[in-house]
Amino acid sequence: MSGNTIGKAFKITTWGESHGTAIGVVVNGVPAGMSLSEADIQRELNRRRPGQSILASPRKERDRVEILSGVFQGKTLGTPISMLVRNVDVDSTPYEAIKTKPRPGHADLTYWLKFGYVDYRGGGRSAARETVGRVAAGAIAKKLLAAQGIEIIGHTVEAAGIAVGRELSPAKIRKNVERNPMRCADLNVARRMKAAVLEAAAEGDSTGGMVEVRALGAPPGLGDPVFDKLDAEIAHALMSIGSVKAVLIGAGCKLARMRGSEANDPIILRRGKVVMETNQAGGILGGISTGMPIVARIAVKPTPSITKPQRTVDLARMKETEIKLKGRFDPNICPRIVPVAEAMLALILADHMFRAGKINPDRFK
Amino acid sequence: MSGNTIGKAFKITTWGESHGTAIGVVVNGVPAGMSLSEADIQRELNRRRPGQSILASPRKERDRVEILSGVFQGKTLGTPISMLVRNVDVDSTPYEAIKTKPRPGHADLTYWLKFGYVDYRGGGRSAARETVGRVAAGAIAKKLLAAQGIEIIGHTVEAAGIAVGRELSPAKIRKNVERNPMRCADLNVARRMKAAVLEAAAEGDSTGGMVEVRALGAPPGLGDPVFDKLDAEIAHALMSIGSVKAVLIGAGCKLARMRGSEANDPIILRRGKVVMETNQAGGILGGISTGMPIVARIAVKPTPSITKPQRTVDLARMKETEIKLKGRFDPNICPRIVPVAEAMLALILADHMFRAGKINPDRFK
Amino acid sequence: MSGNTIGKAFKITTWGESHGTAIGVVVNGVPAGMSLSEADIQRELNRRRPGQSILASPRKERDRVEILSGVFQGKTLGTPISMLVRNVDVDSTPYEAIKTKPRPGHADLTYWLKFGYVDYRGGGRSAARETVGRVAAGAIAKKLLAAQGIEIIGHTVEAAGIAVGRELSPAKIRKNVERNPMRCADLNVARRMKAAVLEAAAEGDSTGGMVEVRALGAPPGLGDPVFDKLDAEIAHALMSIGSVKAVLIGAGCKLARMRGSEANDPIILRRGKVVMETNQAGGILGGISTGMPIVARIAVKPTPSITKPQRTVDLARMKETEIKLKGRFDPNICPRIVPVAEAMLALILADHMFRAGKINPDRFK
Amino acid sequence: MSGNTIGKAFKITTWGESHGTAIGVVVNGVPAGMSLSEADIQRELNRRRPGQSILASPRKERDRVEILSGVFQGKTLGTPISMLVRNVDVDSTPYEAIKTKPRPGHADLTYWLKFGYVDYRGGGRSAARETVGRVAAGAIAKKLLAAQGIEIIGHTVEAAGIAVGRELSPAKIRKNVERNPMRCADLNVARRMKAAVLEAAAEGDSTGGMVEVRALGAPPGLGDPVFDKLDAEIAHALMSIGSVKAVLIGAGCKLARMRGSEANDPIILRRGKVVMETNQAGGILGGISTGMPIVARIAVKPTPSITKPQRTVDLARMKETEIKLKGRFDPNICPRIVPVAEAMLALILADHMFRAGKINPDRFK
Repeated sequence: MSGNTIGKAFKITTWGESHGTAIGVVVNGVPAGMSLSEADIQRELNRRRPGQSILASPRKERDRVEILSGVFQGKTLGTPISMLVRNVDVDSTPYEAIKTKPRPGHADLTYWLKFGYVDYRGGGRSAARETVGRVAAGAIAKKLLAAQGIEIIGHTVEAAGIAVGRELSPAKIRKNVERNPMRCADLNVARRMKAAVLEAAAEGDSTGGMVEVRALGAPPGLGDPVFDKLDAEIAHALMSIGSVKAVLIGAGCKLARMRGSEANDPIILRRGKVVMETNQAGGILGGISTGMPIVARIAVKPTPSITKPQRTVDLARMKETEIKLKGRFDPNICPRIVPVAEAMLALILADHMFRAGKINPDRFK
Repeated sequence: MSGNTIGKAFKITTWGESHGTAIGVVVNGVPAGMSLSEADIQRELNRRRPGQSILASPRKERDRVEILSGVFQGKTLGTPISMLVRNVDVDSTPYEAIKTKPRPGHADLTYWLKFGYVDYRGGGRSAARETVGRVAAGAIAKKLLAAQGIEIIGHTVEAAGIAVGRELSPAKIRKNVERNPMRCADLNVARRMKAAVLEAAAEGDSTGGMVEVRALGAPPGLGDPVFDKLDAEIAHALMSIGSVKAVLIGAGCKLARMRGSEANDPIILRRGKVVMETNQAGGILGGISTGMPIVARIAVKPTPSITKPQRTVDLARMKETEIKLKGRFDPNICPRIVPVAEAMLALILADHMFRAGKINPDRFK
Repeated sequence: MSGNTIGKAFKITTWGESHGTAIGVVVNGVPAGMSLSEADIQRELNRRRPGQSILASPRKERDRVEILSGVFQGKTLGTPISMLVRNVDVDSTPYEAIKTKPRPGHADLTYWLKFGYVDYRGGGRSAARETVGRVAAGAIAKKLLAAQGIEIIGHTVEAAGIAVGRELSPAKIRKNVERNPMRCADLNVARRMKAAVLEAAAEGDSTGGMVEVRALGAPPGLGDPVFDKLDAEIAHALMSIGSVKAVLIGAGCKLARMRGSEANDPIILRRGKVVMETNQAGGILGGISTGMPIVARIAVKPTPSITKPQRTVDLARMKETEIKLKGRFDPNICPRIVPVAEAMLALILADHMFRAGKINPDRFK
Repeated sequence: MSGNTIGKAFKITTWGESHGTAIGVVVNGVPAGMSLSEADIQRELNRRRPGQSILASPRKERDRVEILSGVFQGKTLGTPISMLVRNVDVDSTPYEAIKTKPRPGHADLTYWLKFGYVDYRGGGRSAARETVGRVAAGAIAKKLLAAQGIEIIGHTVEAAGIAVGRELSPAKIRKNVERNPMRCADLNVARRMKAAVLEAAAEGDSTGGMVEVRALGAPPGLGDPVFDKLDAEIAHALMSIGSVKAVLIGAGCKLARMRGSEANDPIILRRGKVVMETNQAGGILGGISTGMPIVARIAVKPTPSITKPQRTVDLARMKETEIKLKGRFDPNICPRIVPVAEAMLALILADHMFRAGKINPDRFK
């Protein structure tokens, strides 16, 4: 059963294979009357594009987005917004040699097991390139949220074993995140991360890390218990990103080791408003937003593409064999996951803003 | 927007408040012709019931399930299965005194912020008691899965800072999990866990931990990329359980610190079948099951109810105040989360078995 | 795949077999803070109950509704409202003799073909009794709509070939519909309908008819093109009622014989408001409400249960045979369909009021 | 809330405005391994294209479909199939003059009331051109069904008051439907229809009619009571087509005037199979297919665009005014609705074939 749609009141459907004709997304649920241009989308797409530094793979995805529907004279219509990015600069030849040899850690094998017929070129539908549609849709979600005073920020908090020790201020994240190839807001840590990533890369190996995303300014009351809790849907959305193997809300796994008296955020008054003194809960209690910043972190496994030799099976001959990938790959995917994770968080929050009746579904105001 | 339903082809809708008339669930998507009795359900319900040991709260939920529809002469009809458990032995008086004073770490405040009108007795809809419906439905899912050779097991792998050091065999988990109040399959660790939990409890405090669940025998090919990936839906389902603050698949956060050459599970042949030599991926690649055991772990925060005094706000008078809960509470909720987490994993897997066309939706075979 | 839920933002799930333990419904999406009592539901349930006149079957369904959740101290909580009606006064013995002989025109055969295992007592899940859940949920929808100034009315406009010639005023419908066993608002026509129905009944035969439902006071702008158009969803909802074989919006089939100049409703101003001079469109254009009364009619086939002998097949022996039903049946089902059709129209409109952001999903105001 | 998706297991999302950049559809749920080419789609698209005869509007929609994803080397991948048709040969100038004057019988007014901001060019999203996506997706559904031995046929059974008197054989429909501009399978009736349509057209007026669609070879057991009954979903799908104001299943409204003894189709044995002697029910009982041909008819209102002067309101000045449309319009839309209605029936049936487990969702066999 097809699973290419996410969202309930505000929803997106992505489509496209990495080396197919094009890749894209249809965004449903944007009200009429919001200004929207291709430049709004392009800005975010440029952030996810590879080839921006030596830390990323060299494919020069130009990723020119084209809005095909849902916008008229610079304003949304309340109808589906269809966006398309042609796949250019694709070289599928390296994949011919390994088309029956699934790369360990990749989805090659599972797609083959599920579908029996696969577009093996560049990972096909399972490629990182699929996130083009997510990021394009996320740009719209971010714009909708910004109009409600909600901002989404994110950065790499750990890579190749080097971690940011403490929570950074939003101001610091805004200022530094695009200033370094690791997209880590602590520039000192970023430098050490980069060194560790390159060291592994020099050995033909890859590294993983952790990415943090936050939503600032989200109102209390978002989330639909008992199954469509805000944290449950954030977990769903973030775990659906390739390479993500864990999702943590607020203090996450650390809470498992705390006592209740440490874990419970005291409820206090600040300027006449009920708030929490701390935010171990990451802005969500009982699956509903508290009004505090919403904080989520994800564990990103090392890029599965490495140049070290690896054991696999030739499915055509059903024989064990070895595979040695050529070419250059992202030695660490965290910096490129940052905008994708932001997009997913934005999509879930926008959806819940509609579900909670906080944005008019027909007319943008 | 209501979020009380989970699943697509196989789905459940739970309802009920902790101190209301009753609590229950409607299960949709069970094919006709499967034998099903109240005893099948009761067995699992008894596992989640509190009051089983000094580690759990003393409410004597008798939890007698009644099947109201969908079963005729001991067999399912392919129609909705409605199940009901009356709420008996409820004492709401302790909640009168604190009805305008939200308990820190609980959903009291967020329900109040969202709905403006709340059943404050015993946590209402946000109470752990809501899981009665999940576990009842999970019993049906487990039965459906068992007929396909799929087994769901789980146990507590960490509590109050005491952790099981290594992965235990399924045989050991089956044998030991119900033999100790921590539901930890390593009996030595279980003893130490219990001591640590009781030590905190003696100080009026609570503790958290980690629970692991596994699905054994699941076929490859389950999961619907790119959004309804198997791991994304497992994350959704597990994160929707109260007190869960992180979901980890396979090696989880450890993968963030590995290199690709360690993280990638080598693909090999075993008795003519393509399998993986290790299972860091937790049985899921690209959001699709590999055929290896599916492994997920969740971080459980300490029970928010503690008897230590805590700071909160009296919402009726909008003044800061202190709250001191009386009575006895679960000092550690992990053992009771085990059957709930198993139920959620069972529900997601059953759903995906239907979606992938591996169980006939109309007739049980 | 289970199809027992209808609605998107406001949705209901019905369950239960005619001669099973109970029958019921879970209503999701009602905001918190609306007053609701069992009496609100009972009033509508009493309207659908059989045994009210010689025109209906004699089963004395007492149909006492019990609200099990979602209401606290007389007000809704924003959580699922579960309602239950026990099945009492059921005599399943007449069905034993015919359990392998599907009744022509009934769903007996198709349930058997689909599921292979069927509750043959009283039609099981396919019985008219299933509408108890619809009507109970519809009572809540009507209450939600009434608070928005929207009223749902309906009556029988044709039965046994006797038709109401012209459109009756809402006032007349309100006044007369419950005053006669045909639930036809034209009392003269009602008398002739009744005579014609009884004439057929005397011959052991049944008759069909047409039922009209209207929504008054619905705002413009309801409906979600291009698939979830208001008329498309009304058609879905009304066609899902047993025995309904056609759904007509506004002038319906008559429009097929008109010219455009007759069919197009002129757009005019009335007291500064844009309205239509006529309402051939039945209040819906392009799948969106115009602000005019929403008008739908349904064709109801004759009750399939007749006492005349009929040809069927004994499925146990795979031999052709004859069936002769005993007992008394509704000779005309139209009067009992009126409250059900009203309920379905109310459910769809309430759902669209939420979807269009016209009712707050969390808090009733 | 967006309503641009239809289907559950097999689903489509259409997008695009009549005079926007392009129009298209994303099809989800097609299994991997089915051969599919643009020619398969183009064939059906050519049938819906206007400008094929003097009976249709002269816009020369070339409608070249491009498959952008989901197909690799001539076979489907099990991933979303995105299809696009560029809008060429559009002249928006005639719409400038009437952009604040809603055309009676059109969706102009309701889109304006709902969204407040509208693409007024050529009807925007509400235009007949939106059906390009439906027909393209329907071509895929038809191909899936054909592999299961299911055929979808349709023709015009009434236009401008001229009706086909009896049910025509499938052979005759296949043979004649594309041989005449009315797409009526009775060529004599077709000639008279055409004359009547042209007579009205000469007076600047338009006409309506009835279209019939049938599914042949559908297995018994399709349909998901109690809300997702096969007839309920067919009604939904067909009513969602612009200009359709009634949906009739089987004998439709005639059943309302029959007695039970006439309406009930006798159940008999034919070559060892349980079938019905007649098919008044149109192949559906209790919302589930019987195995007999599935028959639906729709009432199509006259094309709202007429050249006769009509009363409307200038929304910019809030003054009553008159509108006189120029140019040529389809004087009767029935022939162009035939392929659209076929597409919608095909989509619903394909969806139910998946839901009932009768087509493997992952691999085409």
